[in-house]
Amino acid sequence: MKLYCFGESGNAYTAALTMELAGVKWDPIFVDFFKGEARSEAYKKINGMGEVPTLVTDNGVTLSQSGAIQQFIVDKTGKLGGDPKDKYETLRWVLWDNHKMSSQVGIQRFLMNFLPADKRPEGAINFLSGRIQVALSVLDSALADRDWLVGNSISMADISCCGYLFYDEPFGFNRSDWPNINTWLTRISNQPGWKHPYDLMKRAFISS
Amino acid sequence: MKLYCFGESGNAYTAALTMELAGVKWDPIFVDFFKGEARSEAYKKINGMGEVPTLVTDNGVTLSQSGAIQQFIVDKTGKLGGDPKDKYETLRWVLWDNHKMSSQVGIQRFLMNFLPADKRPEGAINFLSGRIQVALSVLDSALADRDWLVGNSISMADISCCGYLFYDEPFGFNRSDWPNINTWLTRISNQPGWKHPYDLMKRAFISS
Repeated sequence: MKLYCFGESGNAYTAALTMELAGVKWDPIFVDFFKGEARSEAYKKINGMGEVPTLVTDNGVTLSQSGAIQQFIVDKTGKLGGDPKDKYETLRWVLWDNHKMSSQVGIQRFLMNFLPADKRPEGAINFLSGRIQVALSVLDSALADRDWLVGNSISMADISCCGYLFYDEPFGFNRSDWPNINTWLTRISNQPGWKHPYDLMKRAFISS
Repeated sequence: MKLYCFGESGNAYTAALTMELAGVKWDPIFVDFFKGEARSEAYKKINGMGEVPTLVTDNGVTLSQSGAIQQFIVDKTGKLGGDPKDKYETLRWVLWDNHKMSSQVGIQRFLMNFLPADKRPEGAINFLSGRIQVALSVLDSALADRDWLVGNSISMADISCCGYLFYDEPFGFNRSDWPNINTWLTRISNQPGWKHPYDLMKRAFISS
């Protein structure tokens, strides 16, 4: 299977880490995102909406949205899906992440790190900053009395929500401020086969 | 089943319309959102994260995130899930909506309509405005050559993506600017049992 991806995308990382921890063989295909490759005519033949990540399966099926790629891997391997009785709770956290966490953190990290300083929309950054603190607070509280977001083992819910939280670039998240998130991230990175995003996928950003 | 909801929430509308079009009996339980009821101690016993909508099923199971509620209704009724072969494509659009459309449109509509004019973060509004136009463009393009987002009939994908698009309050969306979205919304509102959000759920906002 081929994953069209680049290192800075936490959404690509969620897809990549799901495959890695499920023991699936896959190859990264680098998308030179910051040079506009995702908007090129060639890439539009892979994904008409210019989305990264995109998975192309061995059967030639194209999938996008990291949560849909995760579900495909879960169905294919029987791993990381959680207990079937927790189906809706698992889906809930994947959706919450797409709705409230990775979506906003992903934008913020882009604005704060990959735009020239004089082009950063400060009003948007300030606004997102408050919303991200709320999302982190929800996540930290949810992890206060349990090791994993759903059930008794790591699942696609954890891998979705952690998508942007292993990156070092500043975006308003400091592990030391959130003790439950901090120990949960350590728990995830202790999983056999875990790798940092930049060890799984080539980086696209080169600072000028 | 009981849906904790209020009229202005497009996410609540997605859950409510899914139940309505699937022919499920449900009762709306009004949450007085703008008076802070979702953050009250009483509501925290329903949903510890203060989320609206929240569904409480006949078996007393509590579900949140509109997409998880939709999946539950689809599984329960066998309706609106689309063809099983389209499983990942349907999930992809629900996730895309949570990631790119309803999440951003929902914030924008809140900022532009339910905050006092002197408390509106103009920088954030300007920034979201550009991103929302991109999302609308993606949706309009996707609908250029088909009646429904996935397959040959209305599915949870359509009901997710339309969640905020029937509201009249200004948030940067004018139906006449997007011909494919416009005809698709008409197609949705022509479905037997369709109702406008304010005819399904009590409004919480009273302008001062």
